[in-house]
Amino acid sequence: MGPVSRTPIPDAARRPGRPSYDRDSLLEVAVEVFNERGYDGTSMEDLAQRLRLSKSSIYHHVAGKEELLDLAANRALDALFAVLEDEGEPASTATERLERLVHRSVEVLAAELPYVTVLLRVRGNTPAEQRALLRRREFDHRVAALVSHAAAEGGVRADVDPHLAARLLFGCVNSLVEWYRPDGGLPVATLAGALRAILFDGLRDAAER
Amino acid sequence: MGPVSRTPIPDAARRPGRPSYDRDSLLEVAVEVFNERGYDGTSMEDLAQRLRLSKSSIYHHVAGKEELLDLAANRALDALFAVLEDEGEPASTATERLERLVHRSVEVLAAELPYVTVLLRVRGNTPAEQRALLRRREFDHRVAALVSHAAAEGGVRADVDPHLAARLLFGCVNSLVEWYRPDGGLPVATLAGALRAILFDGLRDAAER
Repeated sequence: MGPVSRTPIPDAARRPGRPSYDRDSLLEVAVEVFNERGYDGTSMEDLAQRLRLSKSSIYHHVAGKEELLDLAANRALDALFAVLEDEGEPASTATERLERLVHRSVEVLAAELPYVTVLLRVRGNTPAEQRALLRRREFDHRVAALVSHAAAEGGVRADVDPHLAARLLFGCVNSLVEWYRPDGGLPVATLAGALRAILFDGLRDAAER
Repeated sequence: MGPVSRTPIPDAARRPGRPSYDRDSLLEVAVEVFNERGYDGTSMEDLAQRLRLSKSSIYHHVAGKEELLDLAANRALDALFAVLEDEGEPASTATERLERLVHRSVEVLAAELPYVTVLLRVRGNTPAEQRALLRRREFDHRVAALVSHAAAEGGVRADVDPHLAARLLFGCVNSLVEWYRPDGGLPVATLAGALRAILFDGLRDAAER
């Protein structure tokens, strides 16, 4: 159980045939429904049906749909910020840190795929969505700062604006949610290595440069 | 007027205060609604409200929502296939054709942004969506064949599987729909040039290789 779990529902309170959830497992199902129907398009009634719980049983675990979005988005964002804040070798250059960030972000995306997918589809119509977008923008700014730092060191090409480069790098990483499935036979290490190789050294064969 | 236009509604048939549409302008509005609410989440009633037309007036132009999806997806796909099929200089290598395809696909994406967005969000729940996905997969297969051809020529790196490389290239191109807005101050030529430079030659500074 993760840090967001609460005490399980006592047996006496369960109705026969109803599944029991802690907050993590309830979140897991809610996130599935968000990704199928969109967060906007999901009602508490939809969640209750999928969970085979009454709405009041859901409210035992969370204050509502917005709290579920907070939990889902923060799970993805906490993992991404952890990668960003892990400085690695003290002597590493900004370019090395940027490369490692891209590589490890692919790993986070694969490990937390449904949560990252929810995060990336947030559109900002409600306060919970705006909170997620705000943290996501903070992440993007810090990536752009790292690209600028790498450019100042001369490690990355100077003919692409660092903010644009940061958008393109993470646009490419984020696009993986559209098709990558960790159980589909392509190991995440292969995927992360290929994306890192293309983004930093290019698809062109080295001998052709 | 494009090839999908029909004769405008005769003046006598218009109700006062109702806007008039040809098939292109009706499609333009429908595509806006699809991108806001999702294709699945859009009813003919939603379209009628936005268009300020009765549903029967919409049926004057198109057979229904599915035909609007066909028109939107095919507009994007026709433009992408035209770029794929324009062979360019007879002496060009597969790698040069691939680079040009990436560059020009960014231009298509910018020029046909709402239509490409509809295409990329298709999920395959209905026959019209399945038709769009089938053509999209055909496009992806042909890109993968071009990458394989470029790899066989020795123009692109041999350590990334050509199908994976094709997915990553077009994942990056397609990710632009999430944030690029042609009127936002970033010229499409700058965007296409930056993406092409990063994908083919890498973000790393050439002197650092």
